Amino acid sequence: MQTLKFGLIGTGYMGKAHAIALRAAPTVFQLPAQPVCELLAEVDGELASSKARELGFARATGDWKALISDPEVDVVDVCSPNYLHKEMALAAIAAGKHVYAEKPLALSAADALEMVEAAEQAGVKTLVGFNYIRNPATQLAREIVASGEIGELIHFRGRHNEDYLSDPELPHGWRTRRGTAGAGALGDVGSHILNMAEYLTGQRVTEVFGQLQTVISRRPHADGSGGTGEVENDDQAQALLRFDSGLIGNVEASRVAVGRKMGLAYTLTGTKGAILFDQERMSELQLYQSEGPKGRRGFRTLLMGPEHPDYAAFSPAAGHGLGYNDQKVIEIRDLVEGIVMGRPLYPDFREAWRVNGMIEAIERSHIEGRWARVVA
Amino acid sequence: MQTLKFGLIGTGYMGKAHAIALRAAPTVFQLPAQPVCELLAEVDGELASSKARELGFARATGDWKALISDPEVDVVDVCSPNYLHKEMALAAIAAGKHVYAEKPLALSAADALEMVEAAEQAGVKTLVGFNYIRNPATQLAREIVASGEIGELIHFRGRHNEDYLSDPELPHGWRTRRGTAGAGALGDVGSHILNMAEYLTGQRVTEVFGQLQTVISRRPHADGSGGTGEVENDDQAQALLRFDSGLIGNVEASRVAVGRKMGLAYTLTGTKGAILFDQERMSELQLYQSEGPKGRRGFRTLLMGPEHPDYAAFSPAAGHGLGYNDQKVIEIRDLVEGIVMGRPLYPDFREAWRVNGMIEAIERSHIEGRWARVVA
Amino acid sequence: MQTLKFGLIGTGYMGKAHAIALRAAPTVFQLPAQPVCELLAEVDGELASSKARELGFARATGDWKALISDPEVDVVDVCSPNYLHKEMALAAIAAGKHVYAEKPLALSAADALEMVEAAEQAGVKTLVGFNYIRNPATQLAREIVASGEIGELIHFRGRHNEDYLSDPELPHGWRTRRGTAGAGALGDVGSHILNMAEYLTGQRVTEVFGQLQTVISRRPHADGSGGTGEVENDDQAQALLRFDSGLIGNVEASRVAVGRKMGLAYTLTGTKGAILFDQERMSELQLYQSEGPKGRRGFRTLLMGPEHPDYAAFSPAAGHGLGYNDQKVIEIRDLVEGIVMGRPLYPDFREAWRVNGMIEAIERSHIEGRWARVVA
Amino acid sequence: MQTLKFGLIGTGYMGKAHAIALRAAPTVFQLPAQPVCELLAEVDGELASSKARELGFARATGDWKALISDPEVDVVDVCSPNYLHKEMALAAIAAGKHVYAEKPLALSAADALEMVEAAEQAGVKTLVGFNYIRNPATQLAREIVASGEIGELIHFRGRHNEDYLSDPELPHGWRTRRGTAGAGALGDVGSHILNMAEYLTGQRVTEVFGQLQTVISRRPHADGSGGTGEVENDDQAQALLRFDSGLIGNVEASRVAVGRKMGLAYTLTGTKGAILFDQERMSELQLYQSEGPKGRRGFRTLLMGPEHPDYAAFSPAAGHGLGYNDQKVIEIRDLVEGIVMGRPLYPDFREAWRVNGMIEAIERSHIEGRWARVVA
Repeated sequence: MQTLKFGLIGTGYMGKAHAIALRAAPTVFQLPAQPVCELLAEVDGELASSKARELGFARATGDWKALISDPEVDVVDVCSPNYLHKEMALAAIAAGKHVYAEKPLALSAADALEMVEAAEQAGVKTLVGFNYIRNPATQLAREIVASGEIGELIHFRGRHNEDYLSDPELPHGWRTRRGTAGAGALGDVGSHILNMAEYLTGQRVTEVFGQLQTVISRRPHADGSGGTGEVENDDQAQALLRFDSGLIGNVEASRVAVGRKMGLAYTLTGTKGAILFDQERMSELQLYQSEGPKGRRGFRTLLMGPEHPDYAAFSPAAGHGLGYNDQKVIEIRDLVEGIVMGRPLYPDFREAWRVNGMIEAIERSHIEGRWARVVA
Repeated sequence: MQTLKFGLIGTGYMGKAHAIALRAAPTVFQLPAQPVCELLAEVDGELASSKARELGFARATGDWKALISDPEVDVVDVCSPNYLHKEMALAAIAAGKHVYAEKPLALSAADALEMVEAAEQAGVKTLVGFNYIRNPATQLAREIVASGEIGELIHFRGRHNEDYLSDPELPHGWRTRRGTAGAGALGDVGSHILNMAEYLTGQRVTEVFGQLQTVISRRPHADGSGGTGEVENDDQAQALLRFDSGLIGNVEASRVAVGRKMGLAYTLTGTKGAILFDQERMSELQLYQSEGPKGRRGFRTLLMGPEHPDYAAFSPAAGHGLGYNDQKVIEIRDLVEGIVMGRPLYPDFREAWRVNGMIEAIERSHIEGRWARVVA
Repeated sequence: MQTLKFGLIGTGYMGKAHAIALRAAPTVFQLPAQPVCELLAEVDGELASSKARELGFARATGDWKALISDPEVDVVDVCSPNYLHKEMALAAIAAGKHVYAEKPLALSAADALEMVEAAEQAGVKTLVGFNYIRNPATQLAREIVASGEIGELIHFRGRHNEDYLSDPELPHGWRTRRGTAGAGALGDVGSHILNMAEYLTGQRVTEVFGQLQTVISRRPHADGSGGTGEVENDDQAQALLRFDSGLIGNVEASRVAVGRKMGLAYTLTGTKGAILFDQERMSELQLYQSEGPKGRRGFRTLLMGPEHPDYAAFSPAAGHGLGYNDQKVIEIRDLVEGIVMGRPLYPDFREAWRVNGMIEAIERSHIEGRWARVVA
Repeated sequence: MQTLKFGLIGTGYMGKAHAIALRAAPTVFQLPAQPVCELLAEVDGELASSKARELGFARATGDWKALISDPEVDVVDVCSPNYLHKEMALAAIAAGKHVYAEKPLALSAADALEMVEAAEQAGVKTLVGFNYIRNPATQLAREIVASGEIGELIHFRGRHNEDYLSDPELPHGWRTRRGTAGAGALGDVGSHILNMAEYLTGQRVTEVFGQLQTVISRRPHADGSGGTGEVENDDQAQALLRFDSGLIGNVEASRVAVGRKMGLAYTLTGTKGAILFDQERMSELQLYQSEGPKGRRGFRTLLMGPEHPDYAAFSPAAGHGLGYNDQKVIEIRDLVEGIVMGRPLYPDFREAWRVNGMIEAIERSHIEGRWARVVA
């Protein structure tokens, strides 16, 4: 059987999730090629070796450039902090490798576009890890919208709020610096809901009006020196949206939303129904349809089951529940199939560039106090 | 015992709710005066008489001006369509009556201000029926915010979405015409959430950025002639908010939000906790506090009980549940006490003028495409 | 207009709820007679007078027998502790009065039967205050079951659990003594769910197997003397049920179920659907139907609205929510209509006797360790 | 690194779940030995080969006895229908292999005991797949109970209801025959909740009173011949429970509970708090504690996170959600650690024998109409 050899750069939060998914994917799905955990790169050789053992990679290196140039590696899997995505991806593309990168793709739309163009010229495949769109419930939401079951969309409400930086005593990290993270909550979690706004509606966001705020303006230095430094990007953001069809909507993103752990949620309102979803209850979709006798209408809780997208591969029985990592398994399936079978991948770098475009438009409109066009 | 004689104008939806509450209030609460259902006005004498019998009013008239000039009437209770509020209230004030009016107060902020000034010059008491703020759960939310239990507020999200005009076959009525309703969803249900934004936070909305949309642009004429006419105000509206303290937030209002029946909901996020509320589950408040061991934190469902504001008067036992009309009972209690004991009433005409001010600022910003100051 | 004059005995929890409902009922509904709050009896004349003023009764007496013999009183409304129901009801019946009594009807099935027979011989109307069956959501559940929308019933699960006696420091009261309350949780809250089991299913419980437990076996004396006395009835009870049709089910009752405030809940499972209900969310019914595509099935949250039983009288708009006291308003409507129009009342003394019969069968089976037939 | 070689018998529902978990476990957890998917047995060699490829097993056989005698196999993983568990497990034990078996362990308590004794004499390790107890939320519930955070337990309510056989047109299969399944719903899903009753409370069920019912008494023959045959075991069961400490409780099990997909749920009531759980929302636990001001008490929704048992291995961020298969990953971790490090395994065959004992006692009490002691 054909293999697809992965080189993983970075073993934090996302690196481990990728490793778990690479292991599970070929058992869950019938894949056209066997993904192989070939080579792992970390900041030094010792950590790399230890992580390779832990995560089941065959080889390790302390030099990510060596990983990229390694002839055995087919796919470069970029799980590093945001500011490294560009350099690594461009190097991988230059080496003719397919690139699987975490989100947001880049620190700026200009950087993202450079990556898009490089990838397209090189003819390599790219995929960006907006994994929540793989959740069967969200795939189902998209299907319901596309099928017209809730009529024509008239409103989209989305949010991705978490509280991981709500403690003011948490020190600076790469996420709180402009130069390493780009936008703050808007880029980190907001990128998910902005991509999802287009994914779910099947429409393009054309104009935005945004408002950003850094709630905790200074944080302790990471070195424990006792001083504090300015937080350089947003803690919370909100925006009104205009889509190309005339649809309107709004989004929120926050990293200081006390109490919210996985607060990605959306409401899709159509002329004949509505959909509610909350990722904290990731295996449920609420569906309302203006059908049947009025006294029997209501939001219906659909528990995901084998009738829904990609669920049956995990369990033949409804209601048994998928987890966060299962979304990554589906993402790996899409990636492997896309590469081996030459299918288009979604969201590829070009699509992810749009997300950077939306982020920048929200920031621009915040500064200018007026609607901003999404350039992407 | 002292009495307070009510003259009710209008017996639609709200008129009946007022009548029920006037009956129940003196048994639920120990009032300083006995409210009396004295006189009822409707568009003609016959309907007035029939409604007076039905709603338990002592006398009836087909002429609202007669009601206002009736020497027995202490309080004029204005439950007519929006466009009649001003004329009726000004007449009542001129006759030296206290005025209890439904919301929104007026078709424009200028009209509202005229009413404010007349009432204040005449020295009569006024109260506007933003009844949802009487719900014990919402009173509790305000208490929790004011007490600092969730720290300092950093975000307010509010919506009041319903679907009462989501059917495009529903014909025109006074609500769909600029001249009779003023703003559409924004004025009708949006006025509730805008008032509540200030009530809950204890802060003033100073600037807004709004977006309005008429989703169903034409509706059948009310006369059944078969033609259609243009809908003159918004079906849905959304806005970003700036409060005087620097707090930010957003609101939505809709009359075409398919599936939402009583979709008034809010999220208050503070630096140390958060509150969630949904009027469709009106006797519950969700409270999160960043206290205690991390593994034991979560949103707590507080069922209203005798420890909470105004609940004990309805039932000595927790969790037994209040209903929509019970909110009006509390409103009547506040009105009677305010008049008899000379207490300030909230929200009075001046406070309701602010709501008209916010509505107009949202409309203005929608047209101008930039932040608009709330003038009120 | 015809009047129906009420004499209320007892002004605790239930007495006030009755008074509120008597006031509100004629405004909510178009009644065939005007209920009048005529006479109120309490343990002494002073308290009676004070309560009459508070609750809006025209006259007061410190002697309940005087109330019963009062020629103006048409309906005797018994809101006294359980152990007084029998004597008062029999006296009222002897005086030819209609009797409206709180639940459980009597301390024993034998007492209840004596009351049934007296009432039926005298030809007076009787109604027992199992008010939760008036909730529109529960009326709707019964309609759905009766209509066959969920097929043939195969299982009933019911519970009424509260925590009002969960604190072991709470002293004895009439509820904890056999001679004043009869059964404990089983009689107090269990009586509701037992009546509801028959109401909802439209079937008779024929045999039961029960288990009772007094969790807090001793409580402080009520006189504050510092000593403790034995609790004489059950704190929690559970039973398996057999209905006449072959349907099976189970019930729970508790007064020590920590965390439950209004924990009346049921699940009705049929061959083609199911219903879930929880009185803590009293304006919602969850309905599942085995219809339509499998991927679109789920429990639907029906928010009560004007399409549902008795809701429209309270509000023309769906989702606005009824409260606990509104159930009593519906009960009063049924009572007044039943008396004036000569309609059968449900649940009358005979029906309430069945509840006493079920309670005793549960107690008997607990002692004997085997199924017990319901004698009633 | 040490390896532990697995031989899997049966590749239905559970077989695939085991295979996925065997793949993922060493990446999720740091295991003391590497589980290897060595050999797979199915009913014939062709199917076995195909399934081995699909599920990632190195070798395949059409003869389960060959698997058991294969010298490379360390652990025999029994995922066959219930009636084969005994023969296969005894053979594996005789061959000195550790045994990992699906539930219920055996068709009867006597069979289970025979298996217990064989395993204990042979000194092999055994584990039975009651996987729901591995869910971090349920592990947390047990910890909370054991810690006394909700005081002393006074009531346990459990159910495991599904609707997988609610369609009367579904034909016979091994689950509907006494000789191949043993008990029906009681054995299949009921075994989970009975084991969980003891796991959560830390107490033993000593006596039970049960009621069983076959709702759909005849089903089509599996061969499509058009005739029907009698269903030989229960579709639904319910029982009252007595635990050794005096604690009482009840359980339900159903395979015809229309609308319930993964209806394993429990309520644990203590003297100072309560816990609610529903596997359909498997990453949430509801916790009530009688602490703090009364007006701030309520059921708290704990979203599983890294502070809770075993969660951190899957994700460092709270609320991200585990799925059904993740429970099996934890089970594999426990199995591997137990075998390699010589730790006791829970639930082993002896513990699973108790479940068969409870099932039989429920069946016996149903027939005899009285309490039955659990013999195990």
